[in-house]
Amino acid sequence: MATASSLFLASPVATAPTARARSTPSASPARPSLRLRRPSTLAAAAVQAEHQPAVAAAPKPPALPFRVGHGFDLHRLEPGLPLIIGGIDIPHDRGCDAHSDGDVLLHCVVDAILGALGLPDIGQIFPDSDPRWKGADSSVFMREAVKLMHEAGYELGNLDATLILQKPKISPFKETIRSNLCDLLGADPSVVNLKAKTHEKVDSLGENRSIAAHTVVLLMRK
Amino acid sequence: MATASSLFLASPVATAPTARARSTPSASPARPSLRLRRPSTLAAAAVQAEHQPAVAAAPKPPALPFRVGHGFDLHRLEPGLPLIIGGIDIPHDRGCDAHSDGDVLLHCVVDAILGALGLPDIGQIFPDSDPRWKGADSSVFMREAVKLMHEAGYELGNLDATLILQKPKISPFKETIRSNLCDLLGADPSVVNLKAKTHEKVDSLGENRSIAAHTVVLLMRK
Amino acid sequence: MATASSLFLASPVATAPTARARSTPSASPARPSLRLRRPSTLAAAAVQAEHQPAVAAAPKPPALPFRVGHGFDLHRLEPGLPLIIGGIDIPHDRGCDAHSDGDVLLHCVVDAILGALGLPDIGQIFPDSDPRWKGADSSVFMREAVKLMHEAGYELGNLDATLILQKPKISPFKETIRSNLCDLLGADPSVVNLKAKTHEKVDSLGENRSIAAHTVVLLMRK
Repeated sequence: MATASSLFLASPVATAPTARARSTPSASPARPSLRLRRPSTLAAAAVQAEHQPAVAAAPKPPALPFRVGHGFDLHRLEPGLPLIIGGIDIPHDRGCDAHSDGDVLLHCVVDAILGALGLPDIGQIFPDSDPRWKGADSSVFMREAVKLMHEAGYELGNLDATLILQKPKISPFKETIRSNLCDLLGADPSVVNLKAKTHEKVDSLGENRSIAAHTVVLLMRK
Repeated sequence: MATASSLFLASPVATAPTARARSTPSASPARPSLRLRRPSTLAAAAVQAEHQPAVAAAPKPPALPFRVGHGFDLHRLEPGLPLIIGGIDIPHDRGCDAHSDGDVLLHCVVDAILGALGLPDIGQIFPDSDPRWKGADSSVFMREAVKLMHEAGYELGNLDATLILQKPKISPFKETIRSNLCDLLGADPSVVNLKAKTHEKVDSLGENRSIAAHTVVLLMRK
Repeated sequence: MATASSLFLASPVATAPTARARSTPSASPARPSLRLRRPSTLAAAAVQAEHQPAVAAAPKPPALPFRVGHGFDLHRLEPGLPLIIGGIDIPHDRGCDAHSDGDVLLHCVVDAILGALGLPDIGQIFPDSDPRWKGADSSVFMREAVKLMHEAGYELGNLDATLILQKPKISPFKETIRSNLCDLLGADPSVVNLKAKTHEKVDSLGENRSIAAHTVVLLMRK
């Protein structure tokens, strides 16, 4: 999915719009008419943060014994494109419109792992404004996330992913996808779960116009 | 979001409709034609539960070492309204239609924390039928949730939030939003994660008609 | 929801389409024009995996101290059908179109528990191609999931569920649903949380044409 976060490294041309913290009155719920701006450091901070090298920004996480993460991704389905799910090229009449290979499952697993670690997300590390990732195989992103996880001192506890798509049937490919996911994660099948649901023919997901995935992960301190 | 749960303190006028537990046959999956009603205590219980003070209802949680929570919130975007995300007023041509300030990120963080603790949700504690919360700054709700978390003997392990909106780009504000979230949570940035995804121009989220957020939290026993 | 995963036991007639693993170049992100097929074992594996008894496939999970799971389910709402939520028959003018009783809450709790354990999902264990489950009371599925959880050596830590529906108000029934859920789980109310959100009148969920639920669970090693 062209992620809003993928625009984290916004084009330098666009002047960074300034955001204003809302003054936060102690108890009274009524909002003050005059919204206090923080000093202009807010604008500077927003710009400065934006251009900091994505991966270095996150401070060293405290040694939590466990960390939870959630990833979500959605791609539009367009006729004639390949449908890659979990690194497996699934025969179908349409596939994902994306900068990379549009693998919603791998993207959302990557975001769940990076999210659990408090690290920059997939759009920050692999921005879709970077030609290097044009048509990229998402297993490249997966290997980076797994590397960062081990470097941060964590390993996968377990992972539970839910694919949402109306067609095609995923069941014939479930174990193949899961085993490829296990390979990429370096994890035992019993801690890597995948299930698929339809969207009952409603909305873009149910009308075969898009595909989405949710993943939750529990990481464990090594 | 005007939550169905926000109607927990349903107006006293509406007679509480009665719900019937479905008789649950031991093994045979076929549903009995006659659905047995529990004694009318069910209706009384539903009404009685409804008018119990929201916060007192939940019994003292057993001392689990960890608790997981998930929050979801969605608001419609309407032209001319402010767009407040994580307490930051983001420059945009539209904002959230809500009883409070419509801060989907803070609402869903609050619901994830209260949900993890098994406490009444944001709609029960701050019902949108209460004029006090009209236009309220959602940091008020956040402070209450954090207070209840500490009172229940828990602290934040880590939090992973995903914003879903088509526009504007969130990247220029990500660190500002995250640092405000850390302030409200009293937490280190490395355990508070935020990412944003678009909805690829499909459905209300992709057509810039709504904004949503998912948050997962892992709470730790103090 | 008629789950894509419910078709796991695909009708034997349909020849199993073959999926091809995408060749995964070491570093270079550019996708090779020629996609290497794994040997035809891939096709055999897909068919063979499909017809394996659903429950036996999953190897014995390693003794993780905690496991996280996420379930999602959605059903279309159609006039004149019963609306069963958490085993409670909620008075409404429409209900879920489903093979079983269409209880999105119980289905998604089952999928969260099975997902946390890395076991086959609700569609694999109770396929909607099986006449035995026609109109089935979803508490049958819940009891099986709880049985499998205990057999795997785990118990419920805590559970946080979010119902998404525009109508009717769930608040009058929240405690009744929650207590039925606790009965089915054999769990204390303080570790079983339920909240409801509307979808702000947008998309199928907001237009009263569907109902959905998300559930996260944290399971603990006994």
